Amino acid sequence: MASTYLYRAVELARRGPLADPNPQVGCVLVRDDRVIGEGWHEGAGTPHAEVAALQAAGGARGATAYVSLEPCHHTGRTGPCTQALIDAGVAEVRYAQPDPNPDAAGGASALRTAGVRVEHEHIDTDLNRYWTYAVSHARPFVTWKFAATLDGRSAAADGSSQWITGPAARADVQARRASAGAIVAGTGTVLADDPRLTLRGHAGNPLRVIVGKRSIPATARVHADDNVLQIATHDPSVVLAALHDRQIWHAWLEGGPTVAAAFLRAGLVDEIVAYLAPALLGAGRSAVADLGIGSMAGIQRYELRDVARVGEDVRITLSGKDV
Amino acid sequence: MASTYLYRAVELARRGPLADPNPQVGCVLVRDDRVIGEGWHEGAGTPHAEVAALQAAGGARGATAYVSLEPCHHTGRTGPCTQALIDAGVAEVRYAQPDPNPDAAGGASALRTAGVRVEHEHIDTDLNRYWTYAVSHARPFVTWKFAATLDGRSAAADGSSQWITGPAARADVQARRASAGAIVAGTGTVLADDPRLTLRGHAGNPLRVIVGKRSIPATARVHADDNVLQIATHDPSVVLAALHDRQIWHAWLEGGPTVAAAFLRAGLVDEIVAYLAPALLGAGRSAVADLGIGSMAGIQRYELRDVARVGEDVRITLSGKDV
Repeated sequence: MASTYLYRAVELARRGPLADPNPQVGCVLVRDDRVIGEGWHEGAGTPHAEVAALQAAGGARGATAYVSLEPCHHTGRTGPCTQALIDAGVAEVRYAQPDPNPDAAGGASALRTAGVRVEHEHIDTDLNRYWTYAVSHARPFVTWKFAATLDGRSAAADGSSQWITGPAARADVQARRASAGAIVAGTGTVLADDPRLTLRGHAGNPLRVIVGKRSIPATARVHADDNVLQIATHDPSVVLAALHDRQIWHAWLEGGPTVAAAFLRAGLVDEIVAYLAPALLGAGRSAVADLGIGSMAGIQRYELRDVARVGEDVRITLSGKDV
Repeated sequence: MASTYLYRAVELARRGPLADPNPQVGCVLVRDDRVIGEGWHEGAGTPHAEVAALQAAGGARGATAYVSLEPCHHTGRTGPCTQALIDAGVAEVRYAQPDPNPDAAGGASALRTAGVRVEHEHIDTDLNRYWTYAVSHARPFVTWKFAATLDGRSAAADGSSQWITGPAARADVQARRASAGAIVAGTGTVLADDPRLTLRGHAGNPLRVIVGKRSIPATARVHADDNVLQIATHDPSVVLAALHDRQIWHAWLEGGPTVAAAFLRAGLVDEIVAYLAPALLGAGRSAVADLGIGSMAGIQRYELRDVARVGEDVRITLSGKDV
């Protein structure tokens, strides 16, 4: 059982922005079993959590720092946190997650070398799930979302699709988009449905990424603001490399069926979130295009993570077997 | 709040067979707040619940009879229960469900005419759900079951389909078949998949009904026993009329897509039970064939009744809006 202060550090971390180049980090400074300072990282360009907590505490000589992530040992826009903790005279550091980032790791050993006691206490948390995945795999975590009828149709025979799912499911999609760094759709979907791909009722918009070579008119609703990027490729790994370069850790893929199939065939979908309406169409656009699967031997299997009722619809969450 | 004895009568009723021409009925005879006899109906050709309870009690003069269903006033294979209760000198009858069967109804008023006190106390129960539906609608209640991938494919491109869902889902289907009077499949499915359509690990087999005009070889596994009926029609209402004549109250429709589509187009599906595997095929046989729906305006909507995880799969139950 990890210390209560470490759980507090994880809670503080969540105050930071979800879709940011930097991970969410929280820090609690404790001396004589009393909290003398707290801090969290408010996003790229602002102080790291450890520095924020040291500033809040005023002085921290002999204190223990509880940090949700192994302190960085890396000079980026700010100096390394290891040095800040050493300079402040912190006696001990306890952290929840080892730093998976090869550029920033080495904090624990640097602290030890400087005579600071260091302990790793594992906490089972989804904090920085996407950042950790992206840093470890050198590409963003990919969620493919689709909405369909119970028989797997995402549009009727004439292409109409508004609305297969109800308002609660659509609001759920909006809320989940907010945690992604990018919303990805193919030119086909953008041309056919003219979606905004923005967040209604949420502050800030993720980058909207259009995949494919067809031209999108400047009047398309996806051009609601400048935060739009078209990547003229059919290769999902090219798309993910471009997003990784932009420090986007979570790509939210909204289709259509052709782009989804390209990612699925490439084995580049880590999570599937399906909103299924209690309805049938019997014909029309399939949720996913041909995957090149000829027989049951080739079936793509995932792990069932969650099943929930969302309004009048069902949300099913699957994850890749290695996620 | 209905009396405890009436709940006991409902419980006793469930001891009878589920898929029987007669409804499940239970009866408790009470005198001076003491149970003097209990009975339930064990199926067509055996005594009705009231008669069984009277036999168990020996005498019932002045007693109150708690019956799950309004006593019948109809001479079938047995005499009317109303007369048996009157002859035994029962002073009062309290029943949970009015008899929806025009042939058997009128029990309450016949008892009152003979000087017996009669009360209807409603109990919210699914007891005799299918029998009540069939008697009221003059056709069996129809459940359509299908198994598919998350993208709505019930077979791969080459027709292979074993196994899309896992063992827990398949066992669940077996258990649910047992409550149906008939399992219905099209000639296409019988020829393509050669299914047994029997209950493994359950006593007794529902009637297996093959719908369509193509010949089924005598060596097909569906001919495992004689309890098989082929109805050479493509008209679902002809199928249901034939089942109704055979006193089958619940038809369990297992496909394939063409037969399912015929029932769905005719508005003759009351319940949909879908088993969805956490898997994708991207091509192959759709769960349901063309429903003649061209645009979203024609979408068939149902009510979401239940969502459950069954082993590694998801079971979604929908019902018709008027069920």
